Amino acid sequence: SNAINLALMPGDGIGVEVMDAAMGVLQKLARRHGLGLSTETLRAGAFAYRQDGTAMSEETFRRAEAADAILLGAMGWPGIRYPDGTEIAPQLDLRFRLGLYAGVRPIRAIPGVPLALAHPRAKEIDMVILRESTEGLFAARGRGEVIEDREARDTMVITRATTERLSRFAFRLAERRAAKLGRPQTVTLVDKANVFTSMAFMRKVFRDVAQEFPHVPSGEHYVDAMALDLVRRPWDFDVLPTENMFGDILSDLGAGLIGGMGYAPSADIGDTHAVFQPSHGTGPDIAGKGIANPTAMILSAALMLDWLGSRGAGQAWTDAAGELEAAVDGAFAAGLRSAEFGGVGTREVAQAVADRIP
Amino acid sequence: SNAINLALMPGDGIGVEVMDAAMGVLQKLARRHGLGLSTETLRAGAFAYRQDGTAMSEETFRRAEAADAILLGAMGWPGIRYPDGTEIAPQLDLRFRLGLYAGVRPIRAIPGVPLALAHPRAKEIDMVILRESTEGLFAARGRGEVIEDREARDTMVITRATTERLSRFAFRLAERRAAKLGRPQTVTLVDKANVFTSMAFMRKVFRDVAQEFPHVPSGEHYVDAMALDLVRRPWDFDVLPTENMFGDILSDLGAGLIGGMGYAPSADIGDTHAVFQPSHGTGPDIAGKGIANPTAMILSAALMLDWLGSRGAGQAWTDAAGELEAAVDGAFAAGLRSAEFGGVGTREVAQAVADRIP
Ligand SMILES: CC(C)[C@H](C(=O)O)[C@@H](O)C(=O)O
Ligand SMILES: CC(C)[C@H](C(=O)O)[C@@H](O)C(=O)O
Repeated sequence: SNAINLALMPGDGIGVEVMDAAMGVLQKLARRHGLGLSTETLRAGAFAYRQDGTAMSEETFRRAEAADAILLGAMGWPGIRYPDGTEIAPQLDLRFRLGLYAGVRPIRAIPGVPLALAHPRAKEIDMVILRESTEGLFAARGRGEVIEDREARDTMVITRATTERLSRFAFRLAERRAAKLGRPQTVTLVDKANVFTSMAFMRKVFRDVAQEFPHVPSGEHYVDAMALDLVRRPWDFDVLPTENMFGDILSDLGAGLIGGMGYAPSADIGDTHAVFQPSHGTGPDIAGKGIANPTAMILSAALMLDWLGSRGAGQAWTDAAGELEAAVDGAFAAGLRSAEFGGVGTREVAQAVADRIP
Repeated sequence: SNAINLALMPGDGIGVEVMDAAMGVLQKLARRHGLGLSTETLRAGAFAYRQDGTAMSEETFRRAEAADAILLGAMGWPGIRYPDGTEIAPQLDLRFRLGLYAGVRPIRAIPGVPLALAHPRAKEIDMVILRESTEGLFAARGRGEVIEDREARDTMVITRATTERLSRFAFRLAERRAAKLGRPQTVTLVDKANVFTSMAFMRKVFRDVAQEFPHVPSGEHYVDAMALDLVRRPWDFDVLPTENMFGDILSDLGAGLIGGMGYAPSADIGDTHAVFQPSHGTGPDIAGKGIANPTAMILSAALMLDWLGSRGAGQAWTDAAGELEAAVDGAFAAGLRSAEFGGVGTREVAQAVADRIP
């Protein structure tokens, strides 16, 4: 039959724990909706590097590439590093090698989850930070230079092609969100066009693309002002495309607003492939304790179902995505508390969500 | 006599308004403490550029350079731009030309000023973001390249010399703060050493300098994790040296926590010169209405007095700095509200502070 083939890459530390918990929920959901799912677990990450000398083998990469979608836990570990001292991060390699330019990082207040901001409107927070994930400052990864132990350089690269793709992705996302939420969605480019040539270039290309979507409101915001406004009035923003490094920073800031990294899912999407993973890391301080919050992983699985649905897997997948998100919301609204807030552990959170799937 | 010669650069928009208000307070303070002050007002900024064709003339620069300290309002204006579209920002030129590598941006909760975070410990926020201000990504300013309208590049530069200076500044600041506050102060470098060569280099140089200060606790934090932690537990941080672009972003985020840009002073300090200015911009939306908050400007003047005192102007200057800060704290603790929070305008805020100077 037309089963969807998922590559599971649990990775290191709590990546393994939240993947396991989320898969339990996903399997129940798949049964209920009659979704054909086959899975294959692939080994990659810091511990793979330590044991095998490679963080992600070519064979592993090829299998991931051949799958319909990739679900990833988290990768990296303190003390396990490449010889040059940088992090073991095959998730970055996947972004580059599979051309996953659109880093979709939804920041949404889940009813019942404690919010960081005192303002009553904080519960309205519902935006997507769209982190370009293949160039920007990260184009320098593995290419930086040190000159005579005196000076070091990394070069930020912005291309027209990628900026066009990212911008179109942002406008289409705004259209879909407007239809779903029943209110207009503004696309706001976050840049630093007042100082940098590359950023002025990015803004120019963004504006060109904006003209293709005259019915979608759009604008621009400097990254420093955006960091301020994410603290002062985050409920005013919808879809925020931005440069890779800026997106890395702003999406963590955003996660802090809505309960922390345990509530921040992500999707790295390209024209042909996509990886879905929680925004959090491997949690070395809490790994093995059974207290990691699986919510971000579960919500990442929902993003995956939605993406598969939008790519022709069928309406059942889209419906399942909506139901999974509703199950998460329902569980927390009914009083579920994760361990960061003095509540229950990984299995219990996943169970509470699963219990809301009929 | 040994009068201190201040260059005043009010600049554009609300820069002029807050400068005017802060100078009233400063003059009263100077009289009370017998501080010899002479001032000279210099013209620079976006409107100067529009009228004279130069944002800061060489003559103006030389006068500023010759002063004992420079007090700056704010510069720049929407719609007035250099031919390449970048911002009119002579304050950036001053940082580069005078070698003001240490961008001191205190983030401190003022008793009585509304805080963004719901957590009760938010009132303990008291840290300094130390933004390197002459290199990092900003080294690319005016040097970025566009290749065939297809790709644009800006290069981040980190030098050993500047990182050493910045790090030593951070450790000395921590020592002074520890003595003043009566509790140890940790220096935490904010970088992205897990991905970038330049950042790994910065971390290495920072660690070398840390060994010169074995009695000062120190560590490192990735910039994305820091953006998260500034929302989740900002009260845990003390002195945060960081790269220029990162500091730009994090200091605005920090300002958002303690009431907004109207409460965020700054000092750009080099080995021989220093510029003191509020972190905010020229406020085109509120300029001319008399509602700009002068607190950041007044607190910047306090930073200036403290700096002058530490450079040999005498204990009276240091005392005056402490008294000015206490006057600000006292006024807000007693119920003063600035216009952003439905309270009073520029003159009234300044008057309330001045009234607390005996
Ligand atoms: C682990 C790290 C290299 C990675 C990044 O910076 O992209 C992470 O912070 C992320 O946001 O996915
Ligand atoms: C006006 C702008 C160029 C400037 C900067 O980015 O440095 C400002 O944001 C600041 O923080 O002083």
